Amino acid sequence: MRSNNRTNSQHRPIEITRNYTCHAEGSVLIKCGQTHVLCNVSVIEGVPSFLKGQGQGWLTAEYGMLPRSTSSRMQREAARGKQSGRTQEIQRLIGRSLRAMIDLTKIGENTLQVDCDVLQADGGTRTASITGAACAIEDAVEYMLKAKLISESPIIKKIAAISAGIVESKVLVDLDYDEDSNCETDMNIVMTEDKQFIEIQGTAEGNPFSQDELNEILTLSSDAIQSIFQITHK
Amino acid sequence: MRSNNRTNSQHRPIEITRNYTCHAEGSVLIKCGQTHVLCNVSVIEGVPSFLKGQGQGWLTAEYGMLPRSTSSRMQREAARGKQSGRTQEIQRLIGRSLRAMIDLTKIGENTLQVDCDVLQADGGTRTASITGAACAIEDAVEYMLKAKLISESPIIKKIAAISAGIVESKVLVDLDYDEDSNCETDMNIVMTEDKQFIEIQGTAEGNPFSQDELNEILTLSSDAIQSIFQITHK
Amino acid sequence: MRSNNRTNSQHRPIEITRNYTCHAEGSVLIKCGQTHVLCNVSVIEGVPSFLKGQGQGWLTAEYGMLPRSTSSRMQREAARGKQSGRTQEIQRLIGRSLRAMIDLTKIGENTLQVDCDVLQADGGTRTASITGAACAIEDAVEYMLKAKLISESPIIKKIAAISAGIVESKVLVDLDYDEDSNCETDMNIVMTEDKQFIEIQGTAEGNPFSQDELNEILTLSSDAIQSIFQITHK
Amino acid sequence: MRSNNRTNSQHRPIEITRNYTCHAEGSVLIKCGQTHVLCNVSVIEGVPSFLKGQGQGWLTAEYGMLPRSTSSRMQREAARGKQSGRTQEIQRLIGRSLRAMIDLTKIGENTLQVDCDVLQADGGTRTASITGAACAIEDAVEYMLKAKLISESPIIKKIAAISAGIVESKVLVDLDYDEDSNCETDMNIVMTEDKQFIEIQGTAEGNPFSQDELNEILTLSSDAIQSIFQITHK
Amino acid sequence: MRSNNRTNSQHRPIEITRNYTCHAEGSVLIKCGQTHVLCNVSVIEGVPSFLKGQGQGWLTAEYGMLPRSTSSRMQREAARGKQSGRTQEIQRLIGRSLRAMIDLTKIGENTLQVDCDVLQADGGTRTASITGAACAIEDAVEYMLKAKLISESPIIKKIAAISAGIVESKVLVDLDYDEDSNCETDMNIVMTEDKQFIEIQGTAEGNPFSQDELNEILTLSSDAIQSIFQITHK
Amino acid sequence: MRSNNRTNSQHRPIEITRNYTCHAEGSVLIKCGQTHVLCNVSVIEGVPSFLKGQGQGWLTAEYGMLPRSTSSRMQREAARGKQSGRTQEIQRLIGRSLRAMIDLTKIGENTLQVDCDVLQADGGTRTASITGAACAIEDAVEYMLKAKLISESPIIKKIAAISAGIVESKVLVDLDYDEDSNCETDMNIVMTEDKQFIEIQGTAEGNPFSQDELNEILTLSSDAIQSIFQITHK
Repeated sequence: MRSNNRTNSQHRPIEITRNYTCHAEGSVLIKCGQTHVLCNVSVIEGVPSFLKGQGQGWLTAEYGMLPRSTSSRMQREAARGKQSGRTQEIQRLIGRSLRAMIDLTKIGENTLQVDCDVLQADGGTRTASITGAACAIEDAVEYMLKAKLISESPIIKKIAAISAGIVESKVLVDLDYDEDSNCETDMNIVMTEDKQFIEIQGTAEGNPFSQDELNEILTLSSDAIQSIFQITHK
Repeated sequence: MRSNNRTNSQHRPIEITRNYTCHAEGSVLIKCGQTHVLCNVSVIEGVPSFLKGQGQGWLTAEYGMLPRSTSSRMQREAARGKQSGRTQEIQRLIGRSLRAMIDLTKIGENTLQVDCDVLQADGGTRTASITGAACAIEDAVEYMLKAKLISESPIIKKIAAISAGIVESKVLVDLDYDEDSNCETDMNIVMTEDKQFIEIQGTAEGNPFSQDELNEILTLSSDAIQSIFQITHK
Repeated sequence: MRSNNRTNSQHRPIEITRNYTCHAEGSVLIKCGQTHVLCNVSVIEGVPSFLKGQGQGWLTAEYGMLPRSTSSRMQREAARGKQSGRTQEIQRLIGRSLRAMIDLTKIGENTLQVDCDVLQADGGTRTASITGAACAIEDAVEYMLKAKLISESPIIKKIAAISAGIVESKVLVDLDYDEDSNCETDMNIVMTEDKQFIEIQGTAEGNPFSQDELNEILTLSSDAIQSIFQITHK
Repeated sequence: MRSNNRTNSQHRPIEITRNYTCHAEGSVLIKCGQTHVLCNVSVIEGVPSFLKGQGQGWLTAEYGMLPRSTSSRMQREAARGKQSGRTQEIQRLIGRSLRAMIDLTKIGENTLQVDCDVLQADGGTRTASITGAACAIEDAVEYMLKAKLISESPIIKKIAAISAGIVESKVLVDLDYDEDSNCETDMNIVMTEDKQFIEIQGTAEGNPFSQDELNEILTLSSDAIQSIFQITHK
Repeated sequence: MRSNNRTNSQHRPIEITRNYTCHAEGSVLIKCGQTHVLCNVSVIEGVPSFLKGQGQGWLTAEYGMLPRSTSSRMQREAARGKQSGRTQEIQRLIGRSLRAMIDLTKIGENTLQVDCDVLQADGGTRTASITGAACAIEDAVEYMLKAKLISESPIIKKIAAISAGIVESKVLVDLDYDEDSNCETDMNIVMTEDKQFIEIQGTAEGNPFSQDELNEILTLSSDAIQSIFQITHK
Repeated sequence: MRSNNRTNSQHRPIEITRNYTCHAEGSVLIKCGQTHVLCNVSVIEGVPSFLKGQGQGWLTAEYGMLPRSTSSRMQREAARGKQSGRTQEIQRLIGRSLRAMIDLTKIGENTLQVDCDVLQADGGTRTASITGAACAIEDAVEYMLKAKLISESPIIKKIAAISAGIVESKVLVDLDYDEDSNCETDMNIVMTEDKQFIEIQGTAEGNPFSQDELNEILTLSSDAIQSIFQITHK
């Protein structure tokens, strides 16, 4: 049996706390089982220089893990003086996925700066970050509307994300750390509420995977993401 | 009237949550009013090279603020590629103060690695970090005793910390961010449960301060620290 | 009509020059249309510390673009003092994909260090890097066999890679830079010679994509990769 | 007996050479016993961006030790690529203390940039830096007055600094390196010529210290600082 | 006998491929024996800030070696996070020498950015870089004339470069890597087509050298450079 | 007339203070006119890893300028986080030149670490560094002999250095900053006491120079260096 007494296609219990901190325009603590991520969204005037004067906005994301969010302590990236390749890859994925939910031409020359900081990690931190940050963006958009920074919502579609993988030839959804360490294929899926894909990223860490296996992963992940929307948008 | 309806000599409400995260040997979330700091203590085998072979342990601390722990977003230090001078000064203060509560010759060649990460800031983050981390160290010591890594407690004295300052010629204890921004003298005091000093660090940011003012600050701070011990060690 | 007079499902002309430089154990210059990448593989004694003493080897990859490989000059990463997030994401993809073609337990405590340096870029540099480096690894393995560093080939499967995307609702294979700049979905696919998947990474940069679109991309990419194997392994 | 045949409350011989180098607007070599620090003050047009347009000036300080200013050679911070936490803590203390002697609204949008470089170290480099730099600032102010950059002196108070500590239960003033290495409490005090405090920073490195011990340290330090003013401003 | 069957005063075979890559305004692959350097020149609008508004242009150079351009793999400077002292010394030499061939007042406020990247190294990479880049600059100047960015050629003199050295008391021209590793004096000479000197840089790595030896080196190098002009400007 | 009332072939007044600081094994303050450099030599046990176990020693040099050693303040390299290309080029020249005066096989597995720090600059800092450091090395060698770290002197030859240049078609020796800013050719020459060359590094910053001009520079520089030996080794 898997942790949290769940079947292969079930995700872990998800808990969303909005307004978790007081300063950010959107602030969500998401708990997916033992994975806890604080997702803050800041509304910042101005855009990066490559966009200046085009009358559109920007959305970008940064990701970090607290040094002892993991089983053994990781070096603090600020002390080490650089972000790891893994961190950079993850924050690029988060930013890219979240940009797909916003019509950037509708937020003026403002930037939505997303910060996903992992307080406690047990697998699936990048997908939890996307799901949590998507909620925090909705709150930040509410803030912008109330503050009359914008007059209509720029949100195109709601999005959420889940991980999946093949462990001992079985497809599992929402792997925890132990499952992830043993999986042969590891995949992250970001989808819209109407079951379209925003991002698919899958790697055969052991054996290559077939088209059939891919299809099974996508079907189960799609179902799980629909279930997550029930929780995040009840 | 001050925030939280308190007098000049009162500290803000303090809340301590132990075992806030699941991986660290000591993990405390401390809330001092709107200042929230997660203090994790890791017990790590080995010591820095300058101590190797001397049969003693080490304690060191790192400090960070989440980018949106503050009213306007700060740049992420990991992305910027270095820790600010302020961060370095604070983490040196935290480590120095906490080392005074432990007999390092009694923990074997192990390191107590303290991580103080500010989730939300409203003044007094360095003193909240010390107070919270002191509790987390006690939990980590409990862990070491149970795991039989050590056979007797290395804790010399309990410690706690508070900030104080002079605002408009009045001494205030435990300044929040607004008070801190306007203070003429800013002081941080770390004390033991028996009212001895571990660290005093005070700066005249406006007018210089007199011996009398210093004495008043120290008296009120000492009282506040005793009150904090009632909360952290009830 | 597309560049190089090709249909939507055709890849650009591919040219492989083996032994392009004289020092590396495997050295391949791959040209995919106007995209030219020099892929060098070095056989280096020893493994990273996390693998020491386990009797197995390692494979890792680094990626770089010459400053003027692009239409306008990019800053030299060595001068800037760090690799961009894009570079890190790409070199992690390259290393991950190539590790899947080698049984690391069969190369002793040696490291295959892959360097992919883009001399000229016109889209698809990461997939060209994987295809070229896979050939260079085969040459480096030949070298190891001849030098009696190993007694049997550690190669599990041949691999190759291609990009694909959706431009104006049509699926295109092997996008050049202009096509890539306008695509709505951008995907990179790494496959084995027996049509299994090693890595899929796809992003909706404009509209989300459907399961049907995904299937069409994968089918056309699979055919293109089979065609590439005809060229690289004739 | 202490080095330089002095009592517990005596500071080491102090020597001030003004105009030590020819380019800086203020340039002082201060020798406190075997501790030698070159303090240069540069008058630079403009202020940091956070002060622009406010019609006031700024004062900031940097601190460094020559690699062989110490008994065994330290790594050069420029070669290592970053300043240590100790360096940052010290230069923040120096800048903060010196800002208290200047009315920044009276120097226009100019910056007083202080550089304290330790040529030879024997304890007390940070307090020697403050005392020496305070003199160099006075010279730089003279320069500004003569050059008609300002029309009245912005100096509020003269300041000087001393270290003190508790060694084997006795309070010592102006510790040299050997004394400092063995002290239980280590304190740095910055005062004005009228005996007010600018900065107090004290740490119990061994046993905690009491209010009585603190008072004794402050009394003796105050006397020593008055004696230093006799030398620096005779 | 030396490599390539040549006498002590002969340089290695030189091959110049113009327009080696398609994006740069000047792009030359130079092969001097087994030393292969790709020299790209970019014409970039604007000048560094220290030259702004003076109506003149600038020329600067960067140099790099691909990690496996050498017999054993070197660490990638971009991954290491800084350029080595050797790299910096070489790129300063290249930039300085090439600036002497251009009248910077005749190129408007534009920058000629030279990138010399060593694909394969066998001694003499810095002199090959200068000789190759000098040709690429001529092509970039042609481009500027055709694009009517400038109306007359800014080229003052053609330049080329060669290395020379003393090995076992004999003067050798154009040392390969093995010769260079054993030489007692190592010199790099940059000259104009009319036999004037642009740069001389010579080091006694073993015994000091005499005025007579210097003269012999300069004479042979001057002849070799004239021979190189026959190849690069036939 | 030139500064210090000297002819074109005269160097500035030189003053050598030995034992300038107390910790270094060799410590020389050299003043060449208004150029003042502190040259410290540290004798350090051990050699870099590339020399370990070969029974020989090493000599290396680092160079720095105090931020206000120059007419306008330069950024502190330690604060900026890296050494400039100029610094790296100079310290490589200093180390290379000084290695030529020592038989490294005669100092055991020890390193002579040279630190040249410019307190005040007025042109010719690199040659002053070499001349001063050569004296400091002699003192460090004396220390090693007395401490019986070595039994015979490893010094092969005494060396000294001078700059020279062509200003308005005249050859000048030992250029000060103003002269250096206007020179057409700039050369640095390092020689032994018996008039052999250790290093020649010359650049045509304006017009190229001829063999005749080179010869005149070398003759005058050689004479000046002999004169310097009279001062440094009287």
